[in-house]
Amino acid sequence: MKRTLAQLLIVLFAAQTGAALAQQTKPETIIKWRQSAYQVITWNMSRIRNSIEGPVFDREEVIRSANVIATLANSGMGSLYRPDTETGTGWKETRVKPELFKNPQQTGELAGQFSKESTEMLRLASTADVSTLRSQYTKLSRTCRACHDEFKIKE
Amino acid sequence: MKRTLAQLLIVLFAAQTGAALAQQTKPETIIKWRQSAYQVITWNMSRIRNSIEGPVFDREEVIRSANVIATLANSGMGSLYRPDTETGTGWKETRVKPELFKNPQQTGELAGQFSKESTEMLRLASTADVSTLRSQYTKLSRTCRACHDEFKIKE
Repeated sequence: MKRTLAQLLIVLFAAQTGAALAQQTKPETIIKWRQSAYQVITWNMSRIRNSIEGPVFDREEVIRSANVIATLANSGMGSLYRPDTETGTGWKETRVKPELFKNPQQTGELAGQFSKESTEMLRLASTADVSTLRSQYTKLSRTCRACHDEFKIKE
Repeated sequence: MKRTLAQLLIVLFAAQTGAALAQQTKPETIIKWRQSAYQVITWNMSRIRNSIEGPVFDREEVIRSANVIATLANSGMGSLYRPDTETGTGWKETRVKPELFKNPQQTGELAGQFSKESTEMLRLASTADVSTLRSQYTKLSRTCRACHDEFKIKE
């Protein structure tokens, strides 16, 4: 395909505009999204817990909630830890420790555990009995806590 | 199965505790979860937009993001509009209009449109060309706006 100079300039301009769009998200916005993603996980952990510990076992609720958590865990949340978001205020001041950004291997391993156990929670949700779901819920909670212990500033 | 009175009392107590657990979530927490869920949707709408309008089309990013949005849209977010959350402060004061709680039929229709178009976005994400994805993105955005126009207080 042969392009005129004008067409090439338009393509170049569009490319730069696109890159600028992707880059222009403010650090504060990224931190807010990150804090929001963890609140959504908390909401759905709480729904699972109510469903498996409450008086009425609600399998559909477990499936829906496990689906939200597993989908988020496998959605590329790592992109919410952009290097310029080590400090800053989203909904509130971030509680991430700077160590998270300095230990990509350990961070990756902890994120991988969260992804693995949330995917397993979702797999079990459709068929497993309540006691299996309870024990998987415990395993999943531990992957949250493992990362908090390493990389989240205590309140 | 025959139960002693003591066993029955334990069952009754457990049932009440379970119900109490489910009920004890504070309105402020529910509002915070609700605000967080919409921020997560905004994050993922932004990822789709960057992927289909930026210089490099990133199909995997569209799939991951569309999956988050569709999963949330079909996760039972209606439970985050508990009657006692008509006013209150989560991360910030809620901007929901009281009309949302008074028009379950209209609310249900708008939520249904959001669910339908986000599910279609996810279905198209794996195979459709960029221009089809752009037009589906526009349809999906309109379902967000339709609900905001009716039920969200302008800033």
